[in-house]
Amino acid sequence: MNELALHTVNIPLADRSYSILIGTDLLSSAQAFEQLSHGGSALIVTNTTVSPLYADTLSTTLRSHFANVRVLVLPDGEHTKHWQTLNTLFDALLSHNFDRKSVLFALGGGVVGDMTGFAAACYMRGISFVQVPTTLLAQVDSSVGGKTGINHPMGKNMIGAFHQPLRVVCDLGTLKTLPPKEVSAGLAEVIKYGPIADSDFLDWIEGHMPALRLCDSDALAYAVRRSCEIKAWVVGKDERESGLRAILNFGHTFGHAIEAGLGYGSWLHGEAVGCGMVMAAHLSCALGLVDQAYVQRLTRVISSAGLPVMGPVLDVHDNAGRYMQLMRHDKKASDGEIRFVVIDGPGRAAVRGAPDDVVREVIERCCA
Amino acid sequence: MNELALHTVNIPLADRSYSILIGTDLLSSAQAFEQLSHGGSALIVTNTTVSPLYADTLSTTLRSHFANVRVLVLPDGEHTKHWQTLNTLFDALLSHNFDRKSVLFALGGGVVGDMTGFAAACYMRGISFVQVPTTLLAQVDSSVGGKTGINHPMGKNMIGAFHQPLRVVCDLGTLKTLPPKEVSAGLAEVIKYGPIADSDFLDWIEGHMPALRLCDSDALAYAVRRSCEIKAWVVGKDERESGLRAILNFGHTFGHAIEAGLGYGSWLHGEAVGCGMVMAAHLSCALGLVDQAYVQRLTRVISSAGLPVMGPVLDVHDNAGRYMQLMRHDKKASDGEIRFVVIDGPGRAAVRGAPDDVVREVIERCCA
Repeated sequence: MNELALHTVNIPLADRSYSILIGTDLLSSAQAFEQLSHGGSALIVTNTTVSPLYADTLSTTLRSHFANVRVLVLPDGEHTKHWQTLNTLFDALLSHNFDRKSVLFALGGGVVGDMTGFAAACYMRGISFVQVPTTLLAQVDSSVGGKTGINHPMGKNMIGAFHQPLRVVCDLGTLKTLPPKEVSAGLAEVIKYGPIADSDFLDWIEGHMPALRLCDSDALAYAVRRSCEIKAWVVGKDERESGLRAILNFGHTFGHAIEAGLGYGSWLHGEAVGCGMVMAAHLSCALGLVDQAYVQRLTRVISSAGLPVMGPVLDVHDNAGRYMQLMRHDKKASDGEIRFVVIDGPGRAAVRGAPDDVVREVIERCCA
Repeated sequence: MNELALHTVNIPLADRSYSILIGTDLLSSAQAFEQLSHGGSALIVTNTTVSPLYADTLSTTLRSHFANVRVLVLPDGEHTKHWQTLNTLFDALLSHNFDRKSVLFALGGGVVGDMTGFAAACYMRGISFVQVPTTLLAQVDSSVGGKTGINHPMGKNMIGAFHQPLRVVCDLGTLKTLPPKEVSAGLAEVIKYGPIADSDFLDWIEGHMPALRLCDSDALAYAVRRSCEIKAWVVGKDERESGLRAILNFGHTFGHAIEAGLGYGSWLHGEAVGCGMVMAAHLSCALGLVDQAYVQRLTRVISSAGLPVMGPVLDVHDNAGRYMQLMRHDKKASDGEIRFVVIDGPGRAAVRGAPDDVVREVIERCCA
């Protein structure tokens, strides 16, 4: 394997434990994909954008381990993350006689990873899959932790499963081809780990933002590694989100409302999360948990990542009401009470409810 | 709870352990459904046949424990066990704001149980459900063990999950309203437990067949209980079918070929399994594992349950070839090799491959 910059982060989940490999040129490294085959076939699932860039390289590499390697190219975009697209995956698996020993490889961003993981969770009641994330957002967040699923017309990720991958292979080289907008979206999830778990990491991000936005290899290597370490720690303690894991949704409650209110795909997920973190920081301040200076600082970092910091107006007549309505549909809501991830002091998060009037005021202040 | 004939069978699966309650008048017993609610809502999922008979009774009972109880009535029949029907379940859950604390109740036969269980496995990445089986087949087999799923046009139960229920409540009274054809179909799965695990139970079934077909309460109570005990033992040892559990598919490899070849719903699942057991017994004999007398005896028991013992001709030109082709698509097939459950001596099963010519000869002999 390439001797430069290979890091391994382990996710400790008993018999579902696995490794995240982070490095350059991993897609063409036979070693990065060893010990995954047990005599079955491989299906690379990718999309129309990523396929021309990396599908051939990965196919060639996998042929050192699998006798039968096929590629399935899905349409690109969050709006395709529904049952109909998933069904084309099942069609492919069944028409090629893929059995329980087959392994799926999710080559792409969060949408490809979520759908491929969910297909693996359900096909013949569960087969193995490997995450090969090619976006920053997927490398630092969505490919790690086993959350898989599809959207329903009435809610995002409403149908899914916890299904851990066999391995995550993050080839940092693939980030070089990302549009700047997607780099920014990925940085939202990187920034997230600072306020919820590691103040030093937030300092580091703040100091390295220009390098990160320019996809400097060393900067990205550290950002991906530290993000995965924090996520691994959280997921290792609470795989199925019965408690702690919910802190990873910092910014996501407001963010999901933005995505749902505008229609999925209008803003990138990371853009909505970036803006959602600003709103969640204001809420934390309104609840007396952090001071105004902290909110301003976090807003500045998010803005410097190229992310929006003002929420869109979703309803000109009752904007706060519309946000509240959408947030009550969130999976984390319980008996209609919205659960917010708030900053409970720098580098520490908590999950709690908040009085409606306080939330409304935050929404009014943060939208334009 | 009714003091008569209440039996409890426990499924030992660590933190997923649960109980099967077997008795009469359980649908109206508040005690049978206690300790399931944690402040969430209840959705009873049933079908057009079962709903008018039992939905009101169960609703009334559940209202002692749940503030909000709703009923969703699905169409009836194996041909409805697909994604579109499942989606009506998700629609209902989302439009009524069901959250992660909600509990689904599967009131009906195997189709309702499989779909409701799979919906529970996937809704918000997993909520709780309770099996309330109202057919003999569901009480002795499909409601126990956590196999859930839907059919795909290219294969039965190809999409699904292992998701254990919180409890199984078998009200023997519901069997009184079963059509005789469905009683026979359920008896196929009862008979199955004899050859694979318990010769004494096969003797008992043979002696009580008339009482079973007439739905005698005592006979059914014992048949359901003993079947559940054997299934609980097998599932407790191998929840996810990595080995032993496959013996529960005795008769199912041939049976699935019959169902797929004729079109699902043409024969009842239990009818196909009954006939499939005869074929699997012949195969066991051809492989030198049991003698001809055992095959004849088992055939007689299956026939006395009102089940078919001759397989249908699926292709007039190459019937054996058609069976083989369909069986190679079975989930248990591995690298195209068909895995058969065979009787390895009375009361003991094994899973193995068999030479194609031997299998072909068995098919030719058993079809008309």
